[in-house]
Amino acid sequence: MSQHVNLNGVMVPVKVACIASNDRGFLLGDGLFETLRVQSGQVVALDRHLARLAEGLEVLGFGVLPLDPVQAIAATLVANQVINGMVRLTVSRGGGIRGVLPPETPSLTVLVTAATVVPVTTPQRVMVSRRTRRNEMSPLSRLKTLNYLDSILARQEAVAAGMDDAIVLNTKGRVAETTSANLLLRLDGGWVTPPVADGALPGTARARLLAAGCIVERSLSEEDLGGISAAFSVSALSLRPLVSLNGKVLSLPDADSTRTFRSVLDLPDPQGVGRVPL
Amino acid sequence: MSQHVNLNGVMVPVKVACIASNDRGFLLGDGLFETLRVQSGQVVALDRHLARLAEGLEVLGFGVLPLDPVQAIAATLVANQVINGMVRLTVSRGGGIRGVLPPETPSLTVLVTAATVVPVTTPQRVMVSRRTRRNEMSPLSRLKTLNYLDSILARQEAVAAGMDDAIVLNTKGRVAETTSANLLLRLDGGWVTPPVADGALPGTARARLLAAGCIVERSLSEEDLGGISAAFSVSALSLRPLVSLNGKVLSLPDADSTRTFRSVLDLPDPQGVGRVPL
Repeated sequence: MSQHVNLNGVMVPVKVACIASNDRGFLLGDGLFETLRVQSGQVVALDRHLARLAEGLEVLGFGVLPLDPVQAIAATLVANQVINGMVRLTVSRGGGIRGVLPPETPSLTVLVTAATVVPVTTPQRVMVSRRTRRNEMSPLSRLKTLNYLDSILARQEAVAAGMDDAIVLNTKGRVAETTSANLLLRLDGGWVTPPVADGALPGTARARLLAAGCIVERSLSEEDLGGISAAFSVSALSLRPLVSLNGKVLSLPDADSTRTFRSVLDLPDPQGVGRVPL
Repeated sequence: MSQHVNLNGVMVPVKVACIASNDRGFLLGDGLFETLRVQSGQVVALDRHLARLAEGLEVLGFGVLPLDPVQAIAATLVANQVINGMVRLTVSRGGGIRGVLPPETPSLTVLVTAATVVPVTTPQRVMVSRRTRRNEMSPLSRLKTLNYLDSILARQEAVAAGMDDAIVLNTKGRVAETTSANLLLRLDGGWVTPPVADGALPGTARARLLAAGCIVERSLSEEDLGGISAAFSVSALSLRPLVSLNGKVLSLPDADSTRTFRSVLDLPDPQGVGRVPL
């Protein structure tokens, strides 16, 4: 965890970093975030993350960032001596008068935290959430917002059932994603991923694999999951094989696909399957 | 706005009230809130608000509150000299390690703020949101959570169109509520309100009117809205007539209904229709 965080452009010890009690991020989840991987001191796919953030700022009417996020990220990595790990950039609409309607000219809160972690490669057992659905009819499904409670509910459900994570269906029963990652599914001899229109977050790793031609978009029903032979969950931070789905055992993804995906995503060679994260 | 807030049981000036930068309320919208009306020094429908909060704490797995909310509310009202106004109780899951999965034993953050305001009675012009939908398939639609971005989007849409508020439909196209209030609609000679199953928040004022037999639940399509002759939006804080819906002018609600609803809700007699809030 961060010992020092960058709050509105200033590095401060985490213990004194203070979010105002009238911050709309805290009161209404009125904000966005990006979680980025740091490898050998470099932020991976920075442009894609910043582009998604910019899209979110536009949709929510946040205006422009009051600082250079690249500089804030760099300062946070240096202060926490993170060479390999992750950095999170959180932007909320800041303070305001009470009520749903935002101020016309918000005073954004920008928080950057960083931590040393190794990309997780441990396999996951997943189930389909029965507790909640992802709302593909909201533009928020295409943004990485602070409204994470549906994912939290589904993750709790999975862990309570002895699983590692849950797949969340959209309101039409189509497959969307896991609670914090996109899905890569081996189906009919190819690799597919649910489309953004079905509620999949346009993840940066997913986008890179699409651009490289490694995967194609395909809308999937829950029934289609029965035909999956192998699968990954993929996020900016990690690529993890799924070893079971609703109790059905999946094959480990083939070595060629694994190597190709890791290469496209600039993921380091794992020291061994099942390696436990720091 | 609060000059003094109650943070985790302690009264502090708002300027020094500090939410930790790793608070899951800020990072993930992982929390709940209640907004309560204060009238002549009394909190209106306190039991109903606390019951809904307790339901939310249970669904989200928050455990029990670390303090007596009634005491914290009372202290906040006294410190801010609020006799007539509102008080907001916010509960987040507090700090935790990074990630979606909450800590097993969370250390909740409890914030209480208060302000002197007069119940708003000004009429509203509303439109149906085209921008987003309410996810009635999520248990969150039945809780008052910090995940308020869909409502914020719809409110922005309404204001941009020159309206006061938006009606949000659910994912099936059924009428749910406005961005921060329940709907009371005059249809076929009676007063109806969308059911919770359609995505309406189980509002405390709505519940009191149902219990008093003033309104009945009825599922409504957008087309049904064309048959509405009069309407209110109702929340814990206010009862406001809707004067137009998607540009169609509505009649003002009849005086008898208005008087009855206000009486059931313990709302003071307005000093005049159209009164502007303090």
